[in-house]
Amino acid sequence: MEELNSPELAHTDLLPRLKNQGYDAERVGRRRAWVEQRCDARLPHIASCSFDPELMRGNIENPIGVAQVPLGVAGPVLVHGRCARGLFYVPMATTEGALIRSYERGMVALTRSGGVQTAVLADENQIAPAFLFPDVESATAFSEWAPSRLAKFQAAAAATTRHGRLKSLACYQAGRQVILNLGFSTGDAQGMNMIVKATYAVCRWVEAAYPGARYLLFSGLCSEKRASGFLLTRGKGKRVTAGCLLSHKVLRLYLHVTADELFRVWQSTVMGHLEAAAIGYNAHAANGLAAIFIVTGQDVATVVSAACALTCFELNPEGLYVSITLPALSVATVGGGTGLPSQSEALAMMGCRGAAKAVKLAEIIAAAVLGGEVSMGAAIASGEFVSAHEQYGRNRPK
Amino acid sequence: MEELNSPELAHTDLLPRLKNQGYDAERVGRRRAWVEQRCDARLPHIASCSFDPELMRGNIENPIGVAQVPLGVAGPVLVHGRCARGLFYVPMATTEGALIRSYERGMVALTRSGGVQTAVLADENQIAPAFLFPDVESATAFSEWAPSRLAKFQAAAAATTRHGRLKSLACYQAGRQVILNLGFSTGDAQGMNMIVKATYAVCRWVEAAYPGARYLLFSGLCSEKRASGFLLTRGKGKRVTAGCLLSHKVLRLYLHVTADELFRVWQSTVMGHLEAAAIGYNAHAANGLAAIFIVTGQDVATVVSAACALTCFELNPEGLYVSITLPALSVATVGGGTGLPSQSEALAMMGCRGAAKAVKLAEIIAAAVLGGEVSMGAAIASGEFVSAHEQYGRNRPK
Amino acid sequence: MEELNSPELAHTDLLPRLKNQGYDAERVGRRRAWVEQRCDARLPHIASCSFDPELMRGNIENPIGVAQVPLGVAGPVLVHGRCARGLFYVPMATTEGALIRSYERGMVALTRSGGVQTAVLADENQIAPAFLFPDVESATAFSEWAPSRLAKFQAAAAATTRHGRLKSLACYQAGRQVILNLGFSTGDAQGMNMIVKATYAVCRWVEAAYPGARYLLFSGLCSEKRASGFLLTRGKGKRVTAGCLLSHKVLRLYLHVTADELFRVWQSTVMGHLEAAAIGYNAHAANGLAAIFIVTGQDVATVVSAACALTCFELNPEGLYVSITLPALSVATVGGGTGLPSQSEALAMMGCRGAAKAVKLAEIIAAAVLGGEVSMGAAIASGEFVSAHEQYGRNRPK
Amino acid sequence: MEELNSPELAHTDLLPRLKNQGYDAERVGRRRAWVEQRCDARLPHIASCSFDPELMRGNIENPIGVAQVPLGVAGPVLVHGRCARGLFYVPMATTEGALIRSYERGMVALTRSGGVQTAVLADENQIAPAFLFPDVESATAFSEWAPSRLAKFQAAAAATTRHGRLKSLACYQAGRQVILNLGFSTGDAQGMNMIVKATYAVCRWVEAAYPGARYLLFSGLCSEKRASGFLLTRGKGKRVTAGCLLSHKVLRLYLHVTADELFRVWQSTVMGHLEAAAIGYNAHAANGLAAIFIVTGQDVATVVSAACALTCFELNPEGLYVSITLPALSVATVGGGTGLPSQSEALAMMGCRGAAKAVKLAEIIAAAVLGGEVSMGAAIASGEFVSAHEQYGRNRPK
Repeated sequence: MEELNSPELAHTDLLPRLKNQGYDAERVGRRRAWVEQRCDARLPHIASCSFDPELMRGNIENPIGVAQVPLGVAGPVLVHGRCARGLFYVPMATTEGALIRSYERGMVALTRSGGVQTAVLADENQIAPAFLFPDVESATAFSEWAPSRLAKFQAAAAATTRHGRLKSLACYQAGRQVILNLGFSTGDAQGMNMIVKATYAVCRWVEAAYPGARYLLFSGLCSEKRASGFLLTRGKGKRVTAGCLLSHKVLRLYLHVTADELFRVWQSTVMGHLEAAAIGYNAHAANGLAAIFIVTGQDVATVVSAACALTCFELNPEGLYVSITLPALSVATVGGGTGLPSQSEALAMMGCRGAAKAVKLAEIIAAAVLGGEVSMGAAIASGEFVSAHEQYGRNRPK
Repeated sequence: MEELNSPELAHTDLLPRLKNQGYDAERVGRRRAWVEQRCDARLPHIASCSFDPELMRGNIENPIGVAQVPLGVAGPVLVHGRCARGLFYVPMATTEGALIRSYERGMVALTRSGGVQTAVLADENQIAPAFLFPDVESATAFSEWAPSRLAKFQAAAAATTRHGRLKSLACYQAGRQVILNLGFSTGDAQGMNMIVKATYAVCRWVEAAYPGARYLLFSGLCSEKRASGFLLTRGKGKRVTAGCLLSHKVLRLYLHVTADELFRVWQSTVMGHLEAAAIGYNAHAANGLAAIFIVTGQDVATVVSAACALTCFELNPEGLYVSITLPALSVATVGGGTGLPSQSEALAMMGCRGAAKAVKLAEIIAAAVLGGEVSMGAAIASGEFVSAHEQYGRNRPK
Repeated sequence: MEELNSPELAHTDLLPRLKNQGYDAERVGRRRAWVEQRCDARLPHIASCSFDPELMRGNIENPIGVAQVPLGVAGPVLVHGRCARGLFYVPMATTEGALIRSYERGMVALTRSGGVQTAVLADENQIAPAFLFPDVESATAFSEWAPSRLAKFQAAAAATTRHGRLKSLACYQAGRQVILNLGFSTGDAQGMNMIVKATYAVCRWVEAAYPGARYLLFSGLCSEKRASGFLLTRGKGKRVTAGCLLSHKVLRLYLHVTADELFRVWQSTVMGHLEAAAIGYNAHAANGLAAIFIVTGQDVATVVSAACALTCFELNPEGLYVSITLPALSVATVGGGTGLPSQSEALAMMGCRGAAKAVKLAEIIAAAVLGGEVSMGAAIASGEFVSAHEQYGRNRPK
Repeated sequence: MEELNSPELAHTDLLPRLKNQGYDAERVGRRRAWVEQRCDARLPHIASCSFDPELMRGNIENPIGVAQVPLGVAGPVLVHGRCARGLFYVPMATTEGALIRSYERGMVALTRSGGVQTAVLADENQIAPAFLFPDVESATAFSEWAPSRLAKFQAAAAATTRHGRLKSLACYQAGRQVILNLGFSTGDAQGMNMIVKATYAVCRWVEAAYPGARYLLFSGLCSEKRASGFLLTRGKGKRVTAGCLLSHKVLRLYLHVTADELFRVWQSTVMGHLEAAAIGYNAHAANGLAAIFIVTGQDVATVVSAACALTCFELNPEGLYVSITLPALSVATVGGGTGLPSQSEALAMMGCRGAAKAVKLAEIIAAAVLGGEVSMGAAIASGEFVSAHEQYGRNRPK
């Protein structure tokens, strides 16, 4: 970088455009060298990519190497789901000391209490284009026209994709604008590209079929990679829940708290969340989600919507019933970054590589994240939070 | 993983505990081999770590290697900030095709319009312990006692850290619980560990000084790694804003839209956000934030709070004034994952390695993310969104 | 009132219980006299009720008279709705000076621009009982059982009411709790009593039909008399929208602003609402709603949910398109307070007394409230806000 | 009202403008007669105003009479506040059957448990003008200029009012807009008129003192009559809390529930609120607030902001600790509608008429509303909700 006296941008300031987008090792190297020279920085570790960069095509542009994020393992967590059944070891990539130890502790406690029941309650990705009309009357006419034409909309969508299937349609009119919320099943893919393309086809079909309809492909309602109240009930991707009855014995021996103490933390922090006008309630679901998303090749930015989650602790005669519900968990086992080498290995660790595994992955993630909720709450209740971070999270000067 | 008929957890199911936590290459390898055997998975790419794993100590537990996340470069973006001045090339790690191309396009458009003004408006990380009392009267007494004792609180906090400094204190009482919101400056570190430790000291001092005070270290109010309304005004970490007047010429030539068209997307999607009860408004700030956080060693889960951002497009005679405000950008240039090899290289690319660089980094990030907002909006307005993703984001079957 | 040294409550401290609940004029007077004596206050104006207090039975308990709220008229507003067609004069009860003048100004401006298009987009009141189960597995089983049994649920509901009809059913499971959202049509009544009773019958039927199901009649989801994100998309009662194209001429002559100036207020305050994490966006819909609810015998507390509304101003070549959408307008023309003497007269002023008029009333309200939005925005834009309040809203010492 | 074929508005369609605004009885009657003729409606009960309508000046325009709202009494409730001390009988105006009985039951239960502790924790009304600048740099300069000039701002404000005092100032910049949040003490008045006028003076002073500053009197941030997250922490008017330990005996004998059962309702409905993305949590605070606001001459539309309240139930060995916190209770005992005849009488019933009584009123309201929270929860827990409404809330055909 340099001090500029003029706002002019010279052609030579632009990143080099290389043949065929430049994904082969030689061109990636050439681009990296350009950056090193231009930014006056040496990038040997970024350069240390263990696989053919041509594999990055479709995942990134202007590649110069890889970010190497520390990868550890937490678990095991025993899952009693529809698809995930058994003990799982969960790979997590993070740079936050003590995080994996905390998740591990929680997962093991859940396992010692008999394991975690999980269920995927809904599975529909969505996108919500906006249709613009000249006035309320014409917008209302469209709101009345569209809902009865699901079959036509499905046909228009189906022309673009074999994997995504339009399942539902709802109109939300405000003034002269009608938001059309479209729900798609996307199989084992996260599917945003797929359903954006299908929605584009739907919109163009509407344009032709309904004279005067103008559209914008996105209205913002669907809350892709954003936190919103809408996500909590409407969801996005998989709505998954996980629960476990933590026994008094496990609470005492492994989490160093009583049920009452742990419950008290839940209640107190729920009040804090309400006062903050937070979306949902959870201790730190984002931590587990981000760590698993990075390592399994998910679209990491979706952690924002996925973390709109509801953790609940309930007093029970036999202990504490703990659960988490993730209404907007948009995870995949095919497509996106899931096929990249280290990401694919991480999925394999959980038996989640490839087709017909996305529901299983969602169940494992919910169980793992529940482990983190329990462990964090217990550390607050027992007063061990600081000492644990002192032990594991200390970043010494190097 | 395996099917279990019994909920019992055998000792051999637990991850191996290795000497001195097992950060040396040999023990990392032994742990990885245990996982490979246990999970029936081969992990050669995870194993391909270009640096001494001992460097991971303090960042992760149970390490078995690294996640390799594709890393590309977007930019340049011209920044006119207090600390960041000049043209910057921004490293981003992602697996979402077309993302970097989109950010690059937006950053270049901002640069061609004369560059981005940025400002860090506030810089205070915070944490909010809860104090619990038997009734409203005793809680009220505490609410009246605490605010006038900032100096005492500061002394208690200062005993634990040289870098974090307690700057402000506010009480939020509800019923018999008093949330004490503490604001700290944390220098160039993200500082959560530092301020948690300082807050622990404060709480213990209060316990001694104010008989009957019981506390929980967290109340949830501070919204660490969560989306909340509180963040929008109170902030967390750096509150940074970035703005630029996009000229009509740049809009037309490089973004293929008019000011009116691009503005129309803003307005329409704002309505969609309001209808979704979203926190804040932005197109896809999470994308840029996640990509930069991964590559620069930030705590990636903080993307949830950082993405509570406000994008604004305003019609101007000379074009479109575009801005983004990130009230809760908690970024660091020392500590956490910032010192890891590839992460440190990425920071070096922007001249942001080490002390006295965190504000500069925040300014560059704001400018970069603004580029993404502009480019996404323009792609929706011009109808090019789908074709761009078709060109760059296609994950071909391998 | 008196200072008490003892927490004991004497029998004589309790309000007198009178025969047959005491609604006849003599007993109302006796109760009032008891209060006057007890509270050392004279209540002649509260006593001045122009109708037989026996008519209050079913609307209030322990009656002692009436609150007399000043009632004025705003309008006319020209409405082009499905049910409301023509010029309307809107009765409003308020004590806030300048409010009626402001609404009047706005309504007349809308009328001069050709009138307001309105549409009721949905009409379904709702209630959401919670079903509690011992674990995630049993709760999930219920979530799968319920949705396919709408006809059975409808039969159970129908046994209790002729007017309310169960139309829809949706399950929202979180952990081991399943919220069952039930949507009812309630004709021209607000219908909460009706649907609560029907829901009670549904819950008891479920209890019998599904062993192990325990329920709570309310889960909080339905947001009765509360502000929530859920209301914006799911609604409650009538979802009604109203829009009008304000011409440049009307803007200039009657509102003393240009389209650009008025739009600028909208945009600036939208940003303020987003920063406040407000539910929806509007200038002061609550003012108009409260004033009309009081005077027409609506349940005034529902102003909280009804005010979750979305006002939108959009620049147009011919002027400014203004609209408001009220997703949760729960208004009635039969039942509740609508049959009380002064309330019934107020409804008659708008041709909205009795059966088959609730949709018409909703349309008039939406148009009237839009008038208030326009007028308030214009007063801010033109700088006349303070002078208008000085002129009309001054409460001189008496 | 009539069907119109033309959008033209005749001069004779406008409400008659009468001399001196027409508040004397004769002119009020003439206006009412005009409305009766025009709307083809008889309005004898609206006409039945027991006081000289000249008293309505400053409270309403275009008056034609009064809305008579049924007024009952609930209580007694024993309050242990700073200003309110003793047993209080609370006047409430409503048309919702069973409401007063429910509040009465709750208040008596609180009283039998020893009464309610209350405290006003903050008392500051606020208003937030927006200042608009050409770019981020100039806006930032203003954000840095303003905070150190509180004394100058206070002087400008003080020139307009003796009662309102500017106490605090905070800048919230987003892009090139700076929201200036001003906090005022307003004594016993609600004070919006007063502080709007003071703020207008402040803004004009800024305009003169800071060249280039353009302002809008409102930014929306302050959330007047709207529900927002901002209100929960920043408040508006009085932040008041009320709490009581309900004994097991009182719970069983008078509320027909155990502490566990009542707590279970709280927890379950908190989850429902979180899932609804509600602002705050309470059972039906709006009911009590609206009923008391109508009868005591408050600005009823502020029920929307006042109902952003936090109810908390906590298990205790001795029973259930119940509390409510109202962060934005903007109530007055002077000004607005408080001086109207029936409203003034209602205030007198609680010893809250006139100066130096607003804090006392706030404390009584908080205690009363807490009674409603307890009673509603108990009715849900015990299954008596429907039977109570059947008994009291039935609107028989008349």
